[in-house]
Amino acid sequence: MSRTVAILGATGQVGRTMLALLEERAFPLSGLRLLASPRQSGRTLRFRGAVVPVEPVTAEGFRGVGIALFAVKNALAQEWAPVARAAGAVVIDNSSAYRYDDAVPLVVPEVNGDLLDARPTLVANPNCSAAPVVLALAALQPLATLQRLVVSTYQSVSGAGTAALDELERGVRHGLAGSRPPARLDGGPAFAYNCIPQIDRFEDNGYTREEMKVVWETRKILRLPGLPVTVTAVRVPVRIGHSAAVHAHFDRPVTPDAARAAWRTFPGLEVADDPARMVYPMPLDVAGRDAVIVGRARVDLTDPNGLAFFAVSDNLRKGAALNAVQIAERWLVGPTVAR
Amino acid sequence: MSRTVAILGATGQVGRTMLALLEERAFPLSGLRLLASPRQSGRTLRFRGAVVPVEPVTAEGFRGVGIALFAVKNALAQEWAPVARAAGAVVIDNSSAYRYDDAVPLVVPEVNGDLLDARPTLVANPNCSAAPVVLALAALQPLATLQRLVVSTYQSVSGAGTAALDELERGVRHGLAGSRPPARLDGGPAFAYNCIPQIDRFEDNGYTREEMKVVWETRKILRLPGLPVTVTAVRVPVRIGHSAAVHAHFDRPVTPDAARAAWRTFPGLEVADDPARMVYPMPLDVAGRDAVIVGRARVDLTDPNGLAFFAVSDNLRKGAALNAVQIAERWLVGPTVAR
Repeated sequence: MSRTVAILGATGQVGRTMLALLEERAFPLSGLRLLASPRQSGRTLRFRGAVVPVEPVTAEGFRGVGIALFAVKNALAQEWAPVARAAGAVVIDNSSAYRYDDAVPLVVPEVNGDLLDARPTLVANPNCSAAPVVLALAALQPLATLQRLVVSTYQSVSGAGTAALDELERGVRHGLAGSRPPARLDGGPAFAYNCIPQIDRFEDNGYTREEMKVVWETRKILRLPGLPVTVTAVRVPVRIGHSAAVHAHFDRPVTPDAARAAWRTFPGLEVADDPARMVYPMPLDVAGRDAVIVGRARVDLTDPNGLAFFAVSDNLRKGAALNAVQIAERWLVGPTVAR
Repeated sequence: MSRTVAILGATGQVGRTMLALLEERAFPLSGLRLLASPRQSGRTLRFRGAVVPVEPVTAEGFRGVGIALFAVKNALAQEWAPVARAAGAVVIDNSSAYRYDDAVPLVVPEVNGDLLDARPTLVANPNCSAAPVVLALAALQPLATLQRLVVSTYQSVSGAGTAALDELERGVRHGLAGSRPPARLDGGPAFAYNCIPQIDRFEDNGYTREEMKVVWETRKILRLPGLPVTVTAVRVPVRIGHSAAVHAHFDRPVTPDAARAAWRTFPGLEVADDPARMVYPMPLDVAGRDAVIVGRARVDLTDPNGLAFFAVSDNLRKGAALNAVQIAERWLVGPTVAR
């Protein structure tokens, strides 16, 4: 296949991180196309020392492309995925448009990368809070069977996009000046100095779509379709780095020591869990890093078979761009022996 | 009894809020003493238009005092509570020094204010995260029996004191200038743009003392000594207002509608729960207010007898100073008919 890579949505938070990762990871590409909506095109971005123009997305733009990394909202993903695939590209889509389609694999390479051995031409990239939680839980699957999951998230503002980061900064400046951070330009509540228990729209069951994404995606990626999962998703005034307080209940005890041992040897995970030395996962420490950091492992006080822990990840990396680039890398490598 | 009120720790976040509340609520006092450590004394504070000096705490300072509101750390509380009581004062202590002493009532007046009918001369005021969660749960006690509780907190920096708010501001200014917020002067991790999964020191079981306070105090105040409770307590870059994501499991279903109806009629609670209109509890909305605001009520997806909700409160008010002043008010009123 062609090793020309396209990024659709190249100017956004996730698109720019994809570009940075292709460079950082020395991705074996032979050509690069940066695509965006007409409004965002006309700009340029740097890649390996060269200045690359951002072009308005058209069908022509996907000609000769082998891998198309999509970092756009659902409607645009649904508009352009068929076009890119028809042009011969493999689409790796960071939107949620295809994640819950049984025919589309939803992949965290360290967990279910084997799904790529079937050479799917459309692959869904998971939600930014689901990916790290799933990775931490997958490492524990050899130890016990997961039976119930309670997750509370602490999600950074970069997950809401570039404009949201500007809103956070604007609100913080109001706060420093002694006034209450104003409502956002989109009418939503201020990010600064606030916790907002709504991310994405509400579903009929009283959960937000963001919360349900974690429910649906955890089940799909861990191949536990009936797993009971409940989630509270909250936006906090952090720039980069999503955190999650996780209570996982198994069919037998998983001790904190056993969990840490499993996490230490699982790809993509790093353990920061030494309370006596004030070592635990924090978003400020994970921003710009690839690993999901886990710690605060302790027995759930309501269930001897329960394990509580805290996980953080750079939501733009493992929660989005990194996972997509890893899917592309694994797709290129092709079928491998089972891990 | 004397209606002279003393505040020990008058210059701190909680002490100053106690003073503001005595004025706001037209507390029926006949005299006021503002006491603090020698280092903090010499300053003055305003009360009902008068300038009141802050005096260094001495045994003499409690002479003639009827009610002593303590807003100091454990060691100082333990040093001065016996002195104040020997001088004839009723001590209402916001530290955790006496909270777990079976002989000392731990009181949220709307929940177990009847304990004040025995005229205790030492009363413990609960933890800033425990108080709002307990209030929200107490309202549901007539509907069903609580059997298990999972709480994740989002705690504001004011809970760590005045210096901590300065640290938050310092870190935010670094962030706005494009640099990483530095470690705190006390060596702890930056508050700004961060989530810190440690509040107070660690216990041997891997939980922080802050987390265990919520466990112990929920059990004691709700009079459910064996209740299984597990907690994750996290500091977030909010100035005022603690939030909690709560998963409460009962012996029978408690519907979101039934919960909201119970909350609406319970003293001290306010419901903000209209997702379609983006109405839900947020710390920016509760700062400076007395009510605990509850919302995001929904069935826990892992348990038909489970209810998930989100509660916020001004941690300096219902979480601390307000509750203490309410205890004082209720103590003065004396035995009443059961509510």
